[in-house]
Amino acid sequence: MLTALRVAVDASEQVRGTTSPNPPVGAVILDAHGVIAGVGATTPVGGPHAEVMALRAAGARARGGTAVVTLEPCNHQGRTGPCALALVEAGISRVVFAAADPSPQAAGGAQTLLASGIEVVAGVGADEVERGPLRAWLHRQRTGRSHVTWKFAASLDGRSAAADGTSQWITGAESRARVHAQRARLDAIVVGTGTVLADDPWLTARDPDGGLAAHQPLRVVVGEREIPATARVLDDAAPTLLMRTRDPHEVLAALSDHPDVLLEGGPHLAGAFLQAGLVDRILAFLSPVLLGAGTAAVEDAGVGTIAQALRFERESVETVGTDLLLSLTPGA
Amino acid sequence: MLTALRVAVDASEQVRGTTSPNPPVGAVILDAHGVIAGVGATTPVGGPHAEVMALRAAGARARGGTAVVTLEPCNHQGRTGPCALALVEAGISRVVFAAADPSPQAAGGAQTLLASGIEVVAGVGADEVERGPLRAWLHRQRTGRSHVTWKFAASLDGRSAAADGTSQWITGAESRARVHAQRARLDAIVVGTGTVLADDPWLTARDPDGGLAAHQPLRVVVGEREIPATARVLDDAAPTLLMRTRDPHEVLAALSDHPDVLLEGGPHLAGAFLQAGLVDRILAFLSPVLLGAGTAAVEDAGVGTIAQALRFERESVETVGTDLLLSLTPGA
Repeated sequence: MLTALRVAVDASEQVRGTTSPNPPVGAVILDAHGVIAGVGATTPVGGPHAEVMALRAAGARARGGTAVVTLEPCNHQGRTGPCALALVEAGISRVVFAAADPSPQAAGGAQTLLASGIEVVAGVGADEVERGPLRAWLHRQRTGRSHVTWKFAASLDGRSAAADGTSQWITGAESRARVHAQRARLDAIVVGTGTVLADDPWLTARDPDGGLAAHQPLRVVVGEREIPATARVLDDAAPTLLMRTRDPHEVLAALSDHPDVLLEGGPHLAGAFLQAGLVDRILAFLSPVLLGAGTAAVEDAGVGTIAQALRFERESVETVGTDLLLSLTPGA
Repeated sequence: MLTALRVAVDASEQVRGTTSPNPPVGAVILDAHGVIAGVGATTPVGGPHAEVMALRAAGARARGGTAVVTLEPCNHQGRTGPCALALVEAGISRVVFAAADPSPQAAGGAQTLLASGIEVVAGVGADEVERGPLRAWLHRQRTGRSHVTWKFAASLDGRSAAADGTSQWITGAESRARVHAQRARLDAIVVGTGTVLADDPWLTARDPDGGLAAHQPLRVVVGEREIPATARVLDDAAPTLLMRTRDPHEVLAALSDHPDVLLEGGPHLAGAFLQAGLVDRILAFLSPVLLGAGTAAVEDAGVGTIAQALRFERESVETVGTDLLLSLTPGA
């Protein structure tokens, strides 16, 4: 069963960034002998959900089989029919899902399945799915706002650029490849005008060979300074939203259809989001270099004395090539 | 055999900081049946070396037995007789040692043993010993100068104090206990006058219960500013050396009898040592907090642009309570 869930999670990762406002879900149908008969993932809004895609792939082999899904099958009639009903009609005997659906209009799928005589196993692999592919969507269901990951790359002494402004490259090639793979699965990526003026980034997701990834996140540039019409971020590789504000609340209000938001800086914009309590995760790429001068990774976070320090909890730490990658969440 | 080496390493750790200019060595004698018959470690200068201490403890049980030593037994007649000869005279059949002795006057112990018909096994656990208890001594044998570890504690954004100068505590209790245990095994601990003026530290090694540890490193305060006669670092808990210079080369010249030196800051002194290429290891305690303002961990390291970044290699990374501890060595 864990293998099937792994396949479902992988299928859901493939569609991350393309399903909003629906969640990126993966589903696997096992036939009555426990052999994988179909795999599916959420299609873009208006299209079939993951369970329906997997049932279509499985066809008649679904009868008497097991459905393994990353999220509790939905119970509501939206643009598409309820997935719980589709599973019943396909003759599925058993449904295993990871995360429960917290949304009032879609929840209750498990009840519908049980009422139809289907065996239901809930919570298998829930932690991995809730921290992974469904993290942003679940966050928005629970809080009403997008999930913000602040990513920064810095030297061991917390600098994101040297004294002369150069920053290419503080981190290693493995870390940069990781960032690009991550961008391709996001809904939106946010930077300040200062970053555009200083670095002129494309903010696109690129494959390892340098080509544009199939999915590009919305590029969002916030701040009151003008950026030149020739800025790379204004090219036609991906849509771009310019917002003449630096208020994190206003930024997130405009991104309500983009649950998975990556904040990339610069230091003052990061400080504003941190001060507003609107950073839900920090991804810190720390490189084993020292600069001793230059741009700080974050400025003006509203901390005047040590007792006001913004405290986080370590979610994970791993090595990425020569760098360290820390994932942190706001402290209790 | 690995168990005996572990016991020898632990014995050597007990005497670290008390043996200079001799190396902190540990030795175990196994009797002819492989049972531990004696354990010894280097005594303060002028006293017996580790092998002699272990042989004394083993007595007649050493005959036909094995000596397990962290360093190649010495071959020279110094203040004490050569250890290689003592092992021969005790009737030892086999000698296992970790690190080879690079010093011209003491090396050759293995040859003497072999010439006496003793079986010699070299290099067992050498990596652990060379990175651990014998690191500083071996470094001085090879380079002619003391081994400098720069330790710093900082927030995730590289600040060692908040905007108002407060810094107690950025790191957690486990990290602070680790620093105190480390100090008790050092030869000298170096800070700048700025650190004394700002923080008024004791720079003593303390047990977990707050009492003074048995061994205290030499406290060294460098810089041209006056420090008050009431400074805690001038109390009688440990000797203190005041040096009216900030030149790292001058500082190390004065500490030639202190091979294991810990540099604790502040940021400008750390920058001067880094710029001079005189930092042999970095121990970075990184706390999962953000400050967004305040004192940088290091300033003025001579880096103007990213191509000049000081690059290090990761030696180890571990979690210490809520903090991360990185050990780094200068890059190739």
